[in-house]
Amino acid sequence: MNIVDIITKKLNNKTLSPKEIEYFVKTSVSGQTADYQVSALLAAIFVNGMNDEETFFLTKYMMESGDILDFSSVSGIKADKHSTGGVADTVTLIAAPAAASCGVRIIKMSGRGLGYSGGTIDKLSAIPGFTTDISKDEALKMSEKSGIVIMGQTDTLAPADKKIYALRDVTGTVESAPLIVSSILSKKLASGADTIVFDVKCGNGAFMKNINSAKSLALQLTGISSMFGKKTAAVISDMSQPLGMNIGNSLEVIEAIEVLKGNVEGDLYELSCLIGGCMVFQAQKTKSLEDGVELIKKSIKTGQALSKFEEFVAQQGGNAKIINNYGLLPKAGSKIDIKADKNGYINSINTQLIGRASVETGAGRIKKNDSIDLGAGIIMNARIGDFVKEDDILLTILSSTSEKCLSAAEIAKNAFEILPCPIEKPILIKDIITKE
Amino acid sequence: MNIVDIITKKLNNKTLSPKEIEYFVKTSVSGQTADYQVSALLAAIFVNGMNDEETFFLTKYMMESGDILDFSSVSGIKADKHSTGGVADTVTLIAAPAAASCGVRIIKMSGRGLGYSGGTIDKLSAIPGFTTDISKDEALKMSEKSGIVIMGQTDTLAPADKKIYALRDVTGTVESAPLIVSSILSKKLASGADTIVFDVKCGNGAFMKNINSAKSLALQLTGISSMFGKKTAAVISDMSQPLGMNIGNSLEVIEAIEVLKGNVEGDLYELSCLIGGCMVFQAQKTKSLEDGVELIKKSIKTGQALSKFEEFVAQQGGNAKIINNYGLLPKAGSKIDIKADKNGYINSINTQLIGRASVETGAGRIKKNDSIDLGAGIIMNARIGDFVKEDDILLTILSSTSEKCLSAAEIAKNAFEILPCPIEKPILIKDIITKE
Repeated sequence: MNIVDIITKKLNNKTLSPKEIEYFVKTSVSGQTADYQVSALLAAIFVNGMNDEETFFLTKYMMESGDILDFSSVSGIKADKHSTGGVADTVTLIAAPAAASCGVRIIKMSGRGLGYSGGTIDKLSAIPGFTTDISKDEALKMSEKSGIVIMGQTDTLAPADKKIYALRDVTGTVESAPLIVSSILSKKLASGADTIVFDVKCGNGAFMKNINSAKSLALQLTGISSMFGKKTAAVISDMSQPLGMNIGNSLEVIEAIEVLKGNVEGDLYELSCLIGGCMVFQAQKTKSLEDGVELIKKSIKTGQALSKFEEFVAQQGGNAKIINNYGLLPKAGSKIDIKADKNGYINSINTQLIGRASVETGAGRIKKNDSIDLGAGIIMNARIGDFVKEDDILLTILSSTSEKCLSAAEIAKNAFEILPCPIEKPILIKDIITKE
Repeated sequence: MNIVDIITKKLNNKTLSPKEIEYFVKTSVSGQTADYQVSALLAAIFVNGMNDEETFFLTKYMMESGDILDFSSVSGIKADKHSTGGVADTVTLIAAPAAASCGVRIIKMSGRGLGYSGGTIDKLSAIPGFTTDISKDEALKMSEKSGIVIMGQTDTLAPADKKIYALRDVTGTVESAPLIVSSILSKKLASGADTIVFDVKCGNGAFMKNINSAKSLALQLTGISSMFGKKTAAVISDMSQPLGMNIGNSLEVIEAIEVLKGNVEGDLYELSCLIGGCMVFQAQKTKSLEDGVELIKKSIKTGQALSKFEEFVAQQGGNAKIINNYGLLPKAGSKIDIKADKNGYINSINTQLIGRASVETGAGRIKKNDSIDLGAGIIMNARIGDFVKEDDILLTILSSTSEKCLSAAEIAKNAFEILPCPIEKPILIKDIITKE
């Protein structure tokens, strides 16, 4: 078997055999196949696609390129969630402890953020003392005790994905369905969960700009997962504006706590309850998804979810006093407000610009090893459909210096479009797909 | 402008602008664009193709990546030829001196061979003392004096092609029309000829296996050339068997001299007269192509072509005595005959196997820096349609050792298919395309 023949096959739109896919993945990781050959095959896959069987085997061999975690010794159904990525997406910090408080086991691996704002691991690192650097044995113990643990992703998880993703990023081959699906699933399936809920974002702040591409991705994620015998569900949710009102690491921890306290409703609350409800239902704690969502809402109302969050923070070494004293979290030293230049209704929000502005404040990173300013970020004061008056504050930008605030403001200032006529709010939940 | 956007565009089957193609070629050569990015774009071009304008600009910028020779100070119309490559293709050694003897200026750059047998430069190097390492100034003088000079291709000619070709070879992206066309033309157009005749080979020993792909390549070569203002013609010729009867460097020099002496007719003679005739006609030495072919035939009959060959050999330092004493050429020490195992008609010849066997004798190279055994090779004794009797010699294999002869024989022994019923000979000239 040789890689040139395999590339040639896919260039000519033929189906690759499992053996050929295995050879490609293994030799890519070992270095026997050169980067310029990997990227040629990625480009061929981008254009000619892969059928479900090929995508299944690509996922399988990428997953098997590294460690596969086994949490079968932990009692109960282990649930996980995955978001395809958006701005102000703080769902995990709410849905995970809420679901855990309803008896679902959460042993979750999360990544650091790239692009807009931080990832879950970055957000949690804003809590003084909190660590996600946890061994498998510690994770097993924590999970038995509290029912919830969130770890950082190890380097030994799907190294083939690391290799392939790095090349996709520099060769324009990121937006390919089989490559996206295999990248997500190779890591998620190696993380040992019994059931997974996918949150597929859709809109101008997401990877998938329209409902068709989002639905197609959701169907593939659930379909290929079921070929692995995993029960999954996918929610297609709106990302035509930031999900929450806070963007940034400390800021998103605060907003999550506010939701858990029952102080804040709106899109972040609704989607967190739905995702949490899916986890509860998939873990067979309720008879229907609707009951799952109700159970999550109840856990928030009764303070049960917040208690679980507190237990979770303390267990991972974090200072749980932050829950009632946000002043203990990292703060930004400078701020600037962006105000409405006229009366009217918010017609659209350029979520990408908001995301880019948040990176400019220091809240996110562009390159893998960039450091993050945990206190920096953006607070939104208006959403699509809201009526604003001239000089109302639309955004507050927070950063370490006034220069950084100004340059972030320069990016964000054109993100809002204000029109004189009333606008309908976007539908938050666009579709729900369940698969046995 | 950035390369990821350019790759993305072609991955999505969009047309690249001249500026984007220029950026790709320039940054590929400078190293600013990484090999894995070059290969991703090559794969995208392979699948999605390029229109004529894109191919024109790819050719132009590849050509302009190196030296462009200017022979405008040489009087007369400078003609060149290019073969897409086949086995026992000794046309240049016959057509070039014959056309020169009819008053056409030949200032030709040739390459070394890769794959089957040697290239023109390798064949000429079998003549003791012959050099193709000639400066531009020397070439100008020789051309003024004798009307013919053949130089080795310099490294400064189309370096972008070298870069891109090396990556195509290891990424399965060789057989792409725009990449083949731009590779051939970037070098040919940089070589300073006024008119070019393309010999597009078609059949099991060629790149283009069928008439449709050969015709499409011929049309593109002549079409893109005319966008550069070059008058060209293309001949589509049969490569379902080796063109001449001798494969190998000394052996092909001998066969060329035999044709020039008028001792040998057949396919090599006929095609050499046609290609030479095209050169004569394109250089406006005759009123029609037919007259051009007749003029070449006459130059062979009268010994004029052979005299020009003698002058050419001597001028480039070669020992012209070889013409009447083949014993002065390198010889192989061992030989082995492959005989017919039954009576019958030759139905087919696996030209690729013959080519591979000739490489095994030492007559060709697989890698760029492999050395060549100038005396080694294969002599054919039968062609498609010939009747042979059991134990008739089909092939004689010549090499430095009996071991090499045996391993070449092992490859070549299955190349001939003998059937009991009479077979028609293949048509040598499949099409002729002329373009102003």
